[in-house]
Amino acid sequence: MNAIARLLQPRSVAIIGASADPGKTAGRPVAYLQKHGFAGRILPVNPKADRIGDLPCYADIAALPETPDVAIVLLGAERAHLAVKELSARGCAAAIVLASGYTETGEDGARRQKQLVEAAGSMRILGPNTIGLVNLTDAIVLSATGALEMDEFPVGGIGVVSQSGGILGSLLSRAAARGIGLSKLISTSNEVDLELADFIDHLADDPATQVIALYIETVRDPAKFRAACLKAARKGKPVVAFKIGRSEAGAQAAVSHTGAMAGADRMYDALFKQVGVIRAQTFNDLLDIPVALATGRHLRGQRVAILTSTGGAGTLVSDDLGVAGFETPAPDAATAEALRALQTGSEAVLDRNPIDVTLAGLRPDLLRGAIRALLASPTYDALVIIVGSSSLAMPELMANAIRDCLSDSDKPVMAYVSPHAPEVGALLTRYGVPAFAAAESCTAALAAMYKVSSFVAPVEEADAGSTVDLGELPSGSLDEAQAKQLFARFNVPCAAERIVTTPAEAEAAARELGGRVVLKILSSQITHKSDVGGVAIGLTPETVGERLISMTADVRAKAGVRPDRFLVQEMVGGGTELILGMHRDALGTAVLLGMGGVTAELFKDTSMRLVTQDAQGLQALSRADALAMAKDLKTWPLLDGFRGRPKADVDALVDAIVAFSRMAAQLGDRLVEAEINPVFVRAQGQGVSAADGVVVLA
Amino acid sequence: MNAIARLLQPRSVAIIGASADPGKTAGRPVAYLQKHGFAGRILPVNPKADRIGDLPCYADIAALPETPDVAIVLLGAERAHLAVKELSARGCAAAIVLASGYTETGEDGARRQKQLVEAAGSMRILGPNTIGLVNLTDAIVLSATGALEMDEFPVGGIGVVSQSGGILGSLLSRAAARGIGLSKLISTSNEVDLELADFIDHLADDPATQVIALYIETVRDPAKFRAACLKAARKGKPVVAFKIGRSEAGAQAAVSHTGAMAGADRMYDALFKQVGVIRAQTFNDLLDIPVALATGRHLRGQRVAILTSTGGAGTLVSDDLGVAGFETPAPDAATAEALRALQTGSEAVLDRNPIDVTLAGLRPDLLRGAIRALLASPTYDALVIIVGSSSLAMPELMANAIRDCLSDSDKPVMAYVSPHAPEVGALLTRYGVPAFAAAESCTAALAAMYKVSSFVAPVEEADAGSTVDLGELPSGSLDEAQAKQLFARFNVPCAAERIVTTPAEAEAAARELGGRVVLKILSSQITHKSDVGGVAIGLTPETVGERLISMTADVRAKAGVRPDRFLVQEMVGGGTELILGMHRDALGTAVLLGMGGVTAELFKDTSMRLVTQDAQGLQALSRADALAMAKDLKTWPLLDGFRGRPKADVDALVDAIVAFSRMAAQLGDRLVEAEINPVFVRAQGQGVSAADGVVVLA
Repeated sequence: MNAIARLLQPRSVAIIGASADPGKTAGRPVAYLQKHGFAGRILPVNPKADRIGDLPCYADIAALPETPDVAIVLLGAERAHLAVKELSARGCAAAIVLASGYTETGEDGARRQKQLVEAAGSMRILGPNTIGLVNLTDAIVLSATGALEMDEFPVGGIGVVSQSGGILGSLLSRAAARGIGLSKLISTSNEVDLELADFIDHLADDPATQVIALYIETVRDPAKFRAACLKAARKGKPVVAFKIGRSEAGAQAAVSHTGAMAGADRMYDALFKQVGVIRAQTFNDLLDIPVALATGRHLRGQRVAILTSTGGAGTLVSDDLGVAGFETPAPDAATAEALRALQTGSEAVLDRNPIDVTLAGLRPDLLRGAIRALLASPTYDALVIIVGSSSLAMPELMANAIRDCLSDSDKPVMAYVSPHAPEVGALLTRYGVPAFAAAESCTAALAAMYKVSSFVAPVEEADAGSTVDLGELPSGSLDEAQAKQLFARFNVPCAAERIVTTPAEAEAAARELGGRVVLKILSSQITHKSDVGGVAIGLTPETVGERLISMTADVRAKAGVRPDRFLVQEMVGGGTELILGMHRDALGTAVLLGMGGVTAELFKDTSMRLVTQDAQGLQALSRADALAMAKDLKTWPLLDGFRGRPKADVDALVDAIVAFSRMAAQLGDRLVEAEINPVFVRAQGQGVSAADGVVVLA
Repeated sequence: MNAIARLLQPRSVAIIGASADPGKTAGRPVAYLQKHGFAGRILPVNPKADRIGDLPCYADIAALPETPDVAIVLLGAERAHLAVKELSARGCAAAIVLASGYTETGEDGARRQKQLVEAAGSMRILGPNTIGLVNLTDAIVLSATGALEMDEFPVGGIGVVSQSGGILGSLLSRAAARGIGLSKLISTSNEVDLELADFIDHLADDPATQVIALYIETVRDPAKFRAACLKAARKGKPVVAFKIGRSEAGAQAAVSHTGAMAGADRMYDALFKQVGVIRAQTFNDLLDIPVALATGRHLRGQRVAILTSTGGAGTLVSDDLGVAGFETPAPDAATAEALRALQTGSEAVLDRNPIDVTLAGLRPDLLRGAIRALLASPTYDALVIIVGSSSLAMPELMANAIRDCLSDSDKPVMAYVSPHAPEVGALLTRYGVPAFAAAESCTAALAAMYKVSSFVAPVEEADAGSTVDLGELPSGSLDEAQAKQLFARFNVPCAAERIVTTPAEAEAAARELGGRVVLKILSSQITHKSDVGGVAIGLTPETVGERLISMTADVRAKAGVRPDRFLVQEMVGGGTELILGMHRDALGTAVLLGMGGVTAELFKDTSMRLVTQDAQGLQALSRADALAMAKDLKTWPLLDGFRGRPKADVDALVDAIVAFSRMAAQLGDRLVEAEINPVFVRAQGQGVSAADGVVVLA
C-alpha cells in the first residue's frame, strides 16, 4: 500500500490539535470521523484535554500508542511544521495540514512553506491550506468542511480533486442534495507535495471511481498532469475540469489564492484538448457532466428524443440542444405507430419532437411504453424526459417507471425537471437518470458524452524526425534571411530569395527568380520593415535596382539607419494567408496557428497545441494534432472550399506545422520567439510558402 | 375598471365544469381559490353536482345567481365555445379557456379556435390552451397549475407573462423556493384574444409591479408589443424576456406548440434592443435578472467588490465577472484601512479583491463593518457577498447583519451561496439581497442592471424626411442602373456611371468619368455578372471599347444571352466594404448592415434594426439607431481606426443607412428585396459610395 492509498484508507488517524468543542473548526475532524462511521482508530492529540468525547486524548505525538497512518494537523502555520517533523520521525505515512498563512500570503508565508517541506522529510503532505479529504467509498472523512454537517451522502463513481477547500465543501453538499454519488474528494490547495496529478493517477486505478472531476486554479506540473490524464483516458475514465482564470480578474484572484502563477487560459484549453479532458464551462457543469458520464451510457450520435407532458419545457430543452448542434427529429413511422398504440383515443399529435404524451405523466404504463418505444427507435441516440408539475404528485411511481426501462438500452437517458422539485430530481439521479433543472445542463452533459465517445488517447509515438544538425547558431534576433534559413532546415518551405547589396545584384537576382519580385531591407534591428518604407512589391528586373536606391534613402530618412543589405524575394501570393508561431509560459511551449488578415485578428481566430514533454525532452506535434489545430480555426472553411474557393493544400500546411513544432522541440528554451507571418497556403497540391519570419534565440 | 383589470381582480369567479374531486385538474381551480384565500364569490357550475365542498354548485350558466366578473372554462375544446357564448351573453367580462386542441393541433383545431372567437363576441378571452393566471398581490389564483399545491408564495414586484402554461408553473414554484416575490403571473398561450402586449401594458400601470418578465415563443403583434414595452420603459419598469427559437429545433418546437410562425430570432434581438427589453440568455436568467432589478438599486459602473470568507468561491465569481467585462479592483487605501481596523490581529491580506475576511462569516459585527466600508468606498459600484459553509450554522444572524447595511447605500448588493443552502438563499432574497447559486447568475444580474441604467426610451420623432416622388416604378427585378437610381433618389450616394451600348459610347463615358473605370453588363436577368465574365475592372478610355466587344462574346458563350447594354462606372475602392440590405418576416421589416469580405461572412457579422411601424405607417431609422447598428458589428473597430487604419466616414455611413431605411419605409411591402453590395465607406470626410445593388419590387 503506497502513501496515497494509506492517506485515503487509513486504519488509524491522529488529530493534532483536536478540540473537545465540536463547534470549533478544530473540533470537527474527530466529530465527523465518528459521525460518518470511521471504523479505524481515532487518536486525538491535545495537551490540554484528557478525553475528547469517549476517546482518550494524548498529550503529544510522542505519547501516541501507535504510529498513525495519517495525521490531521490542526495547528497554526507557526507550529504546524513542528508536529509534521515529529510525525515524520515516527513513520506516519501522510499528514493533512489545514493551516493557512503560507505562500498565498506573501514572503513570510513562503518561508513557512519551505520550512514545512523540510520538516516533512519522506512523509507525504496534503496541503497546507487544505480542508482535507473525504472518502465516501469507505466512509472515511478526514476533513473539517462544514458540509459534513449533513447526515448522509450518496456514494457513487465520481472522484473529485479540488485546489480549493471551499469548493470541495460546495461540491460535496451540492452533490448530496441532488442525489449525485461521489467516491473520493480531495482538496490539494497549496500542493506543497501531493498535487492534482497524484490524485488523478490514483483515482484512475481506483475501482470505485468511474469519472474524475477537477477544480483547477493552476497546473504546477504539466507533464505529470498530462501523463495522469492520459492514463485515466486509457482506463476509460473521463476527466472533467473546471478551470479558473478565463478572465484577467479571475486569474489574478487565483494567483492571490494559490500563490502560484498559472499559464494563459488558452494554453489550458490546448492541454485539455490534447489529453482528452472535458472542460466544464460553468461551475455547475462540474457536477452536471460527471453525473451523466458516470451512468456509463453511450452517446453514438446527436439525435435526441424529448418526451414531455408539458409543452413549454420540452421546447426549452429542444431550443438549447439545437443551439449546440443536436438534432431533435420527429419520430419515424414505426415509432409514431408504437406511441399511437399506447394511447388510443387521445388527441396527442405524434409527428413531432418534443413528443408530447399529455397523460403519460400520470400513467406509469404509458410512460414505460413511450420510453421503450423511443429507446428502441433507430431515429434517436438519446432521450430527455421532461418532468412537469403533473407528475409531482407521485414521484416514486414515475421514477420507478423510468427506472424499469433503463436496462433495455445503453443510450443516455436524462431528465429535465421543470418546476422546483429537488426531491424528484434527486430520486431520478440516484436511479441512474441524471436530473437537471436547467436546459443548458442537459446540453452540456450530452455534448460531453458525445465528446468522450470520440476521444482516442494518442498512442505515444517516438518522434520520427531525426535531430537536425544546426551547426553553430547565433544568439539574439535573427534577420529575416537567417530566420527563413532556420525554418527551411526543418523543412518549412520558404519563398525563394537572394541577399543582395547593390542595384546590379538585385537585378540579377530578380532575373534568376523570374516573374515579379519583392524587395525588402534585411536587418535584425528593424522589425517593422514596412513602417520605414523598407518593403516594395511587384518589381521587375528592370525596376528593382532603381527601387533599391530610393529605398535606401527612404529608410535612412525614416529610421535613421542606412540599410546595406536587401532581400530580393519571389512574389508569393494567392491562396490563404496564415500565421504560424509559438507561445511559451508556465504551462509549456505551444505552437500557435492563426488566420491572417485584420478581420481574423479582430476575431482572435487562433488555435494552439502544446509541444509536449516526455523523459527524452520535448516532442514534435503529431500530424493529427496539426490537422486538429487547423480545423479548430473558426475560419477553417476558408481552407476547405468555402463559397467555391479552391481547397487549400492542407497536407502541406500540416507538414509545415509539424516541421515548425519540431524546431520548437529541438531548440527548447533556446527558442525565445519564432513566427512565420505570413505563411501562404496555396491550392491543393501547390504547397505552402513562408514569406516572412522572426526568430529570437537565447 | 376595464376588462383586463376585472380579469385580474374579479369579485366573482364562475368555474364552468368544476369537479368535486380536487385530485382532478377540473377540481383544482375551486380548491386553489379557496386554499389561497380568494375573498370574492366562487360559483362552480356542473350539472352533475349539487355542492363542491362547502359551495353550492350550479347546473348551468343560466342558473348562476349573478353575472361573474370572470369565468374559468374547464370544458374540452368540443364544448368550450358553447359555454363561452352563454357567458358572453350574460355579460361576463372575461373567460379563461384551459382546453387544448386548437390551432396547435392542426386544421380542425384552427376551425375550433375560430368558432371560439366568434362565440366570445365582446367578452375577452385568455387562452385557449392556457393554465390561467395567478394574482399574488391580491391572493387571487385563477389557475389549475399544480405549482399551486405549494402553501405559500412570496409576494413581490415581478410580473410574469408567459406564452406557456407549464412555464408559468415552473416560474411560480421556482420563485417561491428561492424567496423571489412575484406580483402577477399570466399564461397567454394561444392568444386568441388577450396577448402578451395587453398584459405588458397593464403591468406597466400596475403599482404592485416593478419589473416585467416575459416568456416568449412568438410576438403576434410587433407594433403593439413595441408600444407596450416603451410604455413600461418610460415608467421606469424594466422588461426582461426569455425567447425560444435561438435554434431551428427550438423554433420548430415553438411553432408546433403555439401554431404560430415566429420571425427570425435575430429580428427579435433587434426588436428587443430598440425597445430596451433585456434578453435573458438562459431560462434561469428570467428569474435571476428580474429579482436583481426588483431591488430598485442602481448600478452606475462596472467595479465590483467581492466580500468572502472562502477563497475558492470568491475566485469563481471574480473570474466570471471578468469575462463579462466587470472589474474587481483592489480596495483603495482608505477602504483597506477601514477593513483592517475591523479585525486587529488577524492575518487577512486586504490589498486584494476578493476581499477575504476569514472570520466575518461568524461575526456579524465584522460583517456589518466590512459591508459598510465596501459600500461607502468610491472604488466600488456594487457588492457581491460570498456565503460559505461556515456561515450556515447561523443563517439569520448573517442575513440580519447584511440587511442592516442595505439602507446605507443604493448600490447593488447580492449574494453567491457556495454550498447547497437554499434556506439561506431564500432568506437573503426576501431581505432584498438577491442570492444566487451560480456565478453566472451574479454576472447576468449585474450586466442587466448596467444595461438598464443606460437605456433611454427613444423619443418618438416624426420622420423628418419628406416622401420622395418616385413617379411610376416598374415591377420585378430592376437592373443595376435602375436599382442605383432608386437608391440615389433617397440620397444614398452611388458610384458615377453611364449606360452605354457601343464601344464608342463606352470610350466617351470613360473619358468623361476620368481615371480608371469598370465595365459591367447591364441586365435584370443575369444577377451573377462575374460568373459569366460580365465584369472587367481597371479599364482606360483606350481599352474599354475593345473590352466591350470581347465581353459581349464571352457572355454570349457563357450565358447564352447576347448583352446589349453596359455600365461604365468609376472605379470605387479604398475604405471598407460593407453590405446594406433588408430582411422581412413575420416580425416586420429590418435594415441589415454587414461587414464585407469572406471572413466577416464566416463570422456572420451583421446587425439589424427594425423599421418600426406607427399609425402613419413605417418609420425610417433614427441616426442613433443607425449608429448603434454599425457599433453592433463585431468588426466595428475596422471603421474606428483599428491598428492604425484611418477612421471611416461613419457620419456618411449613418446617413446612408437612414436613407436606405427611408426607402424601405416609403416603399413598404412593394419592396420585396433590396441590397447594396458592396457599399464602400471611405476615410472621414470622404463619404460612402454604393458600387452595386439589387432591387426587386412587387
